[in-house]
Amino acid sequence: MDKSTREEIGKEVIKRLKEKFGEALIANLKEEEALSLDIIVRAFSNIIFDEREQLIKLGSKTQSRAFFNVGQTRVFMQTLLVANACKSLIESGKTTSIRSLYYSTKHNIGNTKENTFEEQGESNPIIEDIEVNINALREELHLRANSKGAMVGNLTIIDSGDEIDLRKMGSGGWAVPSIVEPHTIQFKKCDAKFVLFIEKDTVWGRFNEDKFWKKHNCIIVHGGGQPPRGVRRVVKRMHEELKLPIYVLVDNDPWGFYIYSVVKQGSMKLAYESARMAVPDAKFIGLSSYDQEKYTLPDEVTIKLNDGDKKRIKELLNYKWFQKKEWRKELESMLKKGVKLELEALSSKNIAFITDTYLPEKIERKEWLS
Amino acid sequence: MDKSTREEIGKEVIKRLKEKFGEALIANLKEEEALSLDIIVRAFSNIIFDEREQLIKLGSKTQSRAFFNVGQTRVFMQTLLVANACKSLIESGKTTSIRSLYYSTKHNIGNTKENTFEEQGESNPIIEDIEVNINALREELHLRANSKGAMVGNLTIIDSGDEIDLRKMGSGGWAVPSIVEPHTIQFKKCDAKFVLFIEKDTVWGRFNEDKFWKKHNCIIVHGGGQPPRGVRRVVKRMHEELKLPIYVLVDNDPWGFYIYSVVKQGSMKLAYESARMAVPDAKFIGLSSYDQEKYTLPDEVTIKLNDGDKKRIKELLNYKWFQKKEWRKELESMLKKGVKLELEALSSKNIAFITDTYLPEKIERKEWLS
Repeated sequence: MDKSTREEIGKEVIKRLKEKFGEALIANLKEEEALSLDIIVRAFSNIIFDEREQLIKLGSKTQSRAFFNVGQTRVFMQTLLVANACKSLIESGKTTSIRSLYYSTKHNIGNTKENTFEEQGESNPIIEDIEVNINALREELHLRANSKGAMVGNLTIIDSGDEIDLRKMGSGGWAVPSIVEPHTIQFKKCDAKFVLFIEKDTVWGRFNEDKFWKKHNCIIVHGGGQPPRGVRRVVKRMHEELKLPIYVLVDNDPWGFYIYSVVKQGSMKLAYESARMAVPDAKFIGLSSYDQEKYTLPDEVTIKLNDGDKKRIKELLNYKWFQKKEWRKELESMLKKGVKLELEALSSKNIAFITDTYLPEKIERKEWLS
Repeated sequence: MDKSTREEIGKEVIKRLKEKFGEALIANLKEEEALSLDIIVRAFSNIIFDEREQLIKLGSKTQSRAFFNVGQTRVFMQTLLVANACKSLIESGKTTSIRSLYYSTKHNIGNTKENTFEEQGESNPIIEDIEVNINALREELHLRANSKGAMVGNLTIIDSGDEIDLRKMGSGGWAVPSIVEPHTIQFKKCDAKFVLFIEKDTVWGRFNEDKFWKKHNCIIVHGGGQPPRGVRRVVKRMHEELKLPIYVLVDNDPWGFYIYSVVKQGSMKLAYESARMAVPDAKFIGLSSYDQEKYTLPDEVTIKLNDGDKKRIKELLNYKWFQKKEWRKELESMLKKGVKLELEALSSKNIAFITDTYLPEKIERKEWLS
């Protein structure tokens, strides 16, 4: 995407910011009404699971945020401050972190001892409100989150004008940035047939060192544990724009399974962004709770579930987006066996077992969950 | 470094492994002595601060680890297991994570219910013992730690045979891998005049977006908070091999100052590796406890020190490697003012203040601590 397209997106977002947080209030004033914004509710009560799209989403409940309501004056003022800061940011063409935005909007109010914000915990939810209410991703507001994760494989990308061949990124790889929207990252030559998303960076290192992506013609990416927004979004874009299937490889524990569910269906916290972040087609390729028997892994490489694990499994089983038969079977089997299994446990066969045998077999035999 | 040099290093490390953990024991047997290893002590009691080299180091105290001592039999056996696994790893030419090594050495002992290891907390210290006792870095044993951090700038590198121009790495950058030893990473064309080490990835993002490294002809690197081994080691190598000065930019709080001290002098935990990881010449360029007045930052962007911060400052002031006058002045001023200051606080001027004004002024006026 060239500079002019990028400016067009910026203009569109600014237009929506103005409509929602400026013109609506001017209309209030003209009509001599009390100043008030309609804000979509981002609470559990407004979270729905869209069965057809298989996505966790926000419903349509709204509540008003009024200037003349003593309990809402502060958050009303904060909403306009942050909306205005985002507008300036987009106009400047720069991006910044949400922490930096907090500092740049924090100041003393007039001659009082009141500050606009006391802590970042006040400005973060407002950023989310703005995203939801003008239907723009945080990245389109030019806001950066923390970045982690790396990617290599049979793909060439353009990042901020630089052409980067992900086939020639050595052992380190390309560090996935926080903002991977089309105005920053474009995809060029792609020979890959699928994307392998790996939970852990050290396991990704094994796949990269063994040049798995070259042998099996794919792209490998990790998000250093629970993947940050940038990694989820780049995976989503590769799925949509390059039409690549996504395979997810995680530890066999409730946390790993949850990471899979987030990549696939979205999360409650970011329910309003599922449509742009989640990949309903993503496939769970391992570790399965049945892999210990299948690959005759010794008992001593399993780890006993602790109370936190068990509690988490039961929570997951209660979510309405965890009701697929195969998912329940996995989680119930985990609970019944009472053990979890880490990706590294496959090293008890040999350190390259995961790349030489495990993954190729799973893919060839189509042994995955949908 | 080519493959043959890499193999030579591997041979040398294997030779030392054999001498220390094999031949010494064979000598015991021949002399009909009890099997015993002399192991260098890695406890606080054996940590010294080398005033001349300005490095935290291990002293020369050793203790014996004997097979026929009931309290030591288990750790004796574990030491040989891990040493043997490292030898196999080097011979295979592969690298692996310390977690994977744990799993590959964990197994049942004969027909007993005993396992060689119960948890990774048992194998990690043995890896450190081996590093110390044969004077090899973990990376030379082919062991990977977690990786985080990214790097861009006026430098071309070779990573595992791939030439990577760090001037053309877009917004993401090159993800710094865990192993950056000369057999994996080599430096090629370098125009940079210095290295800027930045504590936080989002602040690094600001410097990269503003192309600070291009304007000021340098290399910028971050380690996502407390830097991992790979980042510390690549900074050290750039200092030694490319003769580049290192500037460290951290939050003005005890944790930021501690990161600076680790980059410069090493840490207690990795005292045995200071000589290969630390850069005694590294310079602290900010944030200083005096920056609030100097740059007229408003009070509301400072953060009150909490009890943990105050305790940590007092601890640092007690370390013998924190006795430099200027360091004490900084920490004492922080304590006296009772506030800390984050890098993002400079955004209260404007979001590019840190790259346009703050850093260039500091460097031009040589305002740093040594």
